[in-house]
Amino acid sequence: MGIITLMTDFGYGDHYAGVMKGVIAGIDPSAIVIDLTHGIESYSLAEAAFKLYASYAYFPEGTVHVAVVDPGVGSARRALAAESGGYRFVGPDNGIFSLIFDKRGVDCIVEITNPAFMLPNVSSTFHGRDIFAPAAAHLSKGVALSDLGEGLQSYERLDIPRQEEDGDVITGKAIYADRFGNLVTNIPGLLITGRTRVCVGDVIIKQTSVSYAGGEKGELLAIVGSSGFLEISLNKGSALEFFGGKLPAVKILKG
Amino acid sequence: MGIITLMTDFGYGDHYAGVMKGVIAGIDPSAIVIDLTHGIESYSLAEAAFKLYASYAYFPEGTVHVAVVDPGVGSARRALAAESGGYRFVGPDNGIFSLIFDKRGVDCIVEITNPAFMLPNVSSTFHGRDIFAPAAAHLSKGVALSDLGEGLQSYERLDIPRQEEDGDVITGKAIYADRFGNLVTNIPGLLITGRTRVCVGDVIIKQTSVSYAGGEKGELLAIVGSSGFLEISLNKGSALEFFGGKLPAVKILKG
Amino acid sequence: MGIITLMTDFGYGDHYAGVMKGVIAGIDPSAIVIDLTHGIESYSLAEAAFKLYASYAYFPEGTVHVAVVDPGVGSARRALAAESGGYRFVGPDNGIFSLIFDKRGVDCIVEITNPAFMLPNVSSTFHGRDIFAPAAAHLSKGVALSDLGEGLQSYERLDIPRQEEDGDVITGKAIYADRFGNLVTNIPGLLITGRTRVCVGDVIIKQTSVSYAGGEKGELLAIVGSSGFLEISLNKGSALEFFGGKLPAVKILKG
Repeated sequence: MGIITLMTDFGYGDHYAGVMKGVIAGIDPSAIVIDLTHGIESYSLAEAAFKLYASYAYFPEGTVHVAVVDPGVGSARRALAAESGGYRFVGPDNGIFSLIFDKRGVDCIVEITNPAFMLPNVSSTFHGRDIFAPAAAHLSKGVALSDLGEGLQSYERLDIPRQEEDGDVITGKAIYADRFGNLVTNIPGLLITGRTRVCVGDVIIKQTSVSYAGGEKGELLAIVGSSGFLEISLNKGSALEFFGGKLPAVKILKG
Repeated sequence: MGIITLMTDFGYGDHYAGVMKGVIAGIDPSAIVIDLTHGIESYSLAEAAFKLYASYAYFPEGTVHVAVVDPGVGSARRALAAESGGYRFVGPDNGIFSLIFDKRGVDCIVEITNPAFMLPNVSSTFHGRDIFAPAAAHLSKGVALSDLGEGLQSYERLDIPRQEEDGDVITGKAIYADRFGNLVTNIPGLLITGRTRVCVGDVIIKQTSVSYAGGEKGELLAIVGSSGFLEISLNKGSALEFFGGKLPAVKILKG
Repeated sequence: MGIITLMTDFGYGDHYAGVMKGVIAGIDPSAIVIDLTHGIESYSLAEAAFKLYASYAYFPEGTVHVAVVDPGVGSARRALAAESGGYRFVGPDNGIFSLIFDKRGVDCIVEITNPAFMLPNVSSTFHGRDIFAPAAAHLSKGVALSDLGEGLQSYERLDIPRQEEDGDVITGKAIYADRFGNLVTNIPGLLITGRTRVCVGDVIIKQTSVSYAGGEKGELLAIVGSSGFLEISLNKGSALEFFGGKLPAVKILKG
């Protein structure tokens, strides 16, 4: 039994994600299909890329991760399927997987062009249904990556600033807020060692915490969150609201 | 392994859809249950009917589609189960399936009255749990449609205006907006042939497009969408917002 | 095949619930995982407790119900696993299960402390992923409750007022509103017998109804809802809006 995950910006009010599952069930009824989330903000590639990066390795090796945040559907952007770090990935070639590919390396990457593994009629508006869901189901069923199309030499990279290190200063930014108002940054927790102050907007947090439970009510906390990145949280409240609904810049001062 | 889909207006904050799945698992644990969506606007039969119409055929033949948008629960409205176009349908007899039945014809239709295929206690407020989920699970498990109750001679039809054709003019309306603000109309794409202008509110769109990727940012587009109906979209924006949150009338001028 | 349900306040925009399913699939791929809901209001233990209470018994016996509304994650609150009424329950020891435990009794209850049944690295912020999902999957796979940790002598109780009976008067309150604006109270339907008036805020409802379909449009109805508790509904409208978005006190007058 193969596992296929779905992450999209389709929301929960429409039938789009359900239809992708119908297509998968028609090709590989034994696949276990798991929603990572369909609540990515519309067109927000960075949010999707970070959430997938934080998620993919919690699934069994071999899992096929499908991600469809696809503002360029119907344009010349390529459809890709790849193997990286023991997992498979299917989606548009727009940077949505590049955090993972950059970290784990790419063992094999192809452009999906073989119509034998697409729906018979491919629309210009819904490749999730017509190209990505069928490709994922065929991979899950045992089709080889190389059967889906020709190999690629490169992939698009996510167009967001990465954290920058300059001596004892690391500069980054909040990428998205989760449901609890925690601001998840692009600063990997591994970089935060020793005595550290965290500057968020014009607030200085004097130390990092290990859980939400510490500190006073209404206190800002800097925590290496469950996704492995630095998060800014407000004890028993929403850090997002604290910063007026904006995603602030974040700076780490070491020493 | 049978497939059962669920479409409701229960939303995602409550336990109602989950409880339906518990009831199904108790009757047919091998069924694959797929959410089409539970985010239909409360009581919006037209939205549900169009989304199911756009979805059902992407599932394997034999799939049991359950739709519960049911403002009349507890009243005299009938509970029905039917076979149409190779699929099975279970839900209230309030027009939610009539777009499909009208198009594909009905091979068999019954009123669900046999208590042997209901929960032991049937409430007056939650037939999704007490009648429709059990009926679907029993069908998935192999029970014959005719065992659920007596045959019906007719079914209710959806009470919305259909598109009207008058020479070179087709008049229709937007039925719902999807998450991206695309306005999905009741005008089948098949009717749109040759040179065509589209009037939406007081805007005239001079031609139809094939994808969202064409055109300028902020330009209104007329596209035959992935559901097979004409959609009005705003390039990199929300057509729903463009029209002030209203669902406008739409007119096609041919020639 | 075991069944595992998930109820959380993680919402639908994040990857947290999906990651829990990945962890489960890695331990027991044959488990059927069903979302009860992830839309509990953040930190609302009472809402979660009532929704689980209204749901758990609609699943096959042996089902493992996981509930994670966990404002105390990372503090000294215990992680528990228990058997009650033929079902298994996994989550924080903060009262989320106590309505069920109080009613059905507890056959076995342990604190989850055995690292052999957790993820290798346990964070201070996401026990749903690191402790509760693995525990549930191991239970589903056949591990004994007593292998997860030492037995407990007690459990935390939900910190909300219960309904009070004083002669012919029952005093309670609305605990949450569902998607339709129905106000679900903590007054069990079984207590409502004979002639009864219901006072909600400063409105008196002169009798209870059996379905939403009765009464006039805009009329307030008192109904023993599908969850077994008294609900206040507005015919073809939202009782929550009627009361200005507040959850009102509710009083039953008998005779």
